[in-house]
Amino acid sequence: MSSPAQQPTFLALSGGVGGAKLSLGLSQVLGERLSIIVNTGDDFEHLGLYISPDADTTLYTLAGIVNPQTGWGRRDETWSFMSALATLGGPTWFRLGDGDLAIHIDRTQRLKRGATLTEICEHLGNTFSIASRILPMTDAPVRTVLETSAGRLPFQEYFVREECRPLVQSIRFEGAEAARPTPQILKALASPTLEGIIICPSNPWLSVDPILAVAGLRAALRNSPAPVIAVSPIVAGKALKGPAAKIFSELGLEPSSKSIARHYAGLIDALVIDAEDAATAKEMGLPVLVTNTVMLTREDKLALARQCLALSKRLARAPARQANRRLRDNVA
Amino acid sequence: MSSPAQQPTFLALSGGVGGAKLSLGLSQVLGERLSIIVNTGDDFEHLGLYISPDADTTLYTLAGIVNPQTGWGRRDETWSFMSALATLGGPTWFRLGDGDLAIHIDRTQRLKRGATLTEICEHLGNTFSIASRILPMTDAPVRTVLETSAGRLPFQEYFVREECRPLVQSIRFEGAEAARPTPQILKALASPTLEGIIICPSNPWLSVDPILAVAGLRAALRNSPAPVIAVSPIVAGKALKGPAAKIFSELGLEPSSKSIARHYAGLIDALVIDAEDAATAKEMGLPVLVTNTVMLTREDKLALARQCLALSKRLARAPARQANRRLRDNVA
Repeated sequence: MSSPAQQPTFLALSGGVGGAKLSLGLSQVLGERLSIIVNTGDDFEHLGLYISPDADTTLYTLAGIVNPQTGWGRRDETWSFMSALATLGGPTWFRLGDGDLAIHIDRTQRLKRGATLTEICEHLGNTFSIASRILPMTDAPVRTVLETSAGRLPFQEYFVREECRPLVQSIRFEGAEAARPTPQILKALASPTLEGIIICPSNPWLSVDPILAVAGLRAALRNSPAPVIAVSPIVAGKALKGPAAKIFSELGLEPSSKSIARHYAGLIDALVIDAEDAATAKEMGLPVLVTNTVMLTREDKLALARQCLALSKRLARAPARQANRRLRDNVA
Repeated sequence: MSSPAQQPTFLALSGGVGGAKLSLGLSQVLGERLSIIVNTGDDFEHLGLYISPDADTTLYTLAGIVNPQTGWGRRDETWSFMSALATLGGPTWFRLGDGDLAIHIDRTQRLKRGATLTEICEHLGNTFSIASRILPMTDAPVRTVLETSAGRLPFQEYFVREECRPLVQSIRFEGAEAARPTPQILKALASPTLEGIIICPSNPWLSVDPILAVAGLRAALRNSPAPVIAVSPIVAGKALKGPAAKIFSELGLEPSSKSIARHYAGLIDALVIDAEDAATAKEMGLPVLVTNTVMLTREDKLALARQCLALSKRLARAPARQANRRLRDNVA
């Protein structure tokens, strides 16, 4: 028996709901051998509270207390606060459940006392008895901002208040150049036990790109000897959730796994696409795994997680991979 | 018909639950002709929120949404936030209901944007369609602090967390000397229509004294030509609610309406005491009204309010009052 520290470890990159589903599958298989880098570009201050939606969705999902209907927020939630706030004329476009408020108030307090987002996520992970580690992409402020047909919109105003209706012209990640990956992320990336890096089926523009924009993080991922694989969030030309396909079109791109492959070119060693898109597998220009990527049940999540881990292992051991990796570096 | 502005106006001084009951009675009778000066010495910052318990109890009571079991907080409240906060290891000694949180978050936001407590109370009063005005005793920070057998305790830690168990040695109102009554209070006091000032049956040490400690406010009350009457919160040697009688004993005083009369000597023109204490009426050393002061029903509140208003009118018109007032000024 080898100790957990000597067993292979894995790293996931994830946004909110879609990414959290695969993160849950990976976490169930790997436990403490998994670290999940979560997007904090969606974070914002609202009603005086620091809100970190992707970290919280991941926490609630891995803790088994996520609202199964929405994929975010808490199950068995009450909404007295929002109702009372509406009476007072306060803003109600961002739905904050009563129990959910506790995490925002607690986090805001801890940040004011000087704790980092990483420390707070670690505390919350321990509180919810989550074996895997949830690592904010950086402890510095990074904010996703969209230039749209309705003007400049911070992420949550675009995503929640405007329900993704405005046409997206460009996306930027304010603060990303000054931000740095945390020591915890760099340590996980430098670990000799690291056997794979999995980009979850999150929105590439809004959930994964902010992570990759943190100065030095993309390079650190590329320099890791571990294979990097991505799971396409596009199935048959559509995003399972959210505006990914719509944004592809608005940016003049075809909403397809092929566009995902191109988007991540130079970074990934393989792409996982859905069986519905099997016919396009040979157009990707890189190794492809075709499988079911639609995660409706716990079994779906576990199965996709196991497929990703098996693919990582095969790639890590394949002699062709080094050549492929050199190619990747030349492309980037 | 005279316009409301020409009709007699009244001013009440009030703390939390007990005072709010009489404030409700007065408000039902007087509507917009009543202004209530509320204690803010109990205010504190908790979980990053500015909490103003006496103002909120008065607001909820006058809005008809107070929890009838406790006398504070909202009726039909839910408690998901406290439950989730407990899971996170946060402090739960101060009970914050889910709907109640809205008022604290809204107030904290408005204060950060530069609004005064008075402006916020006015906004909340309008929101809840309360005809009477709820006026914080000052817009400056004043904090009631107790020296006790358990050391120095800010008010809420003594009152809520320690449940008034420590022995009280002394009480001070930090910031009161630098604080000033608001222009709204001074205007209400200077109004030629002012016909009476009623000190509600609140704890004299913890709820009324902080109001009187605001620099200049006691003098402004004394200088008003309107009679000042107090309703004793002590009935048959006991406080109906809270630690008033206990504190009397700890400070070496007899818990009785006579001690209340002595406490307010130099300020009040008459005292209202309960029928249970009728036998002691002649010991008070000032005009006394004996009536039922225990307010269990809406009718009790209205009846006591009407008695107080009638007493004010009689005193305002009594020729003996000027001599009495001169006596009062000499005593003080």
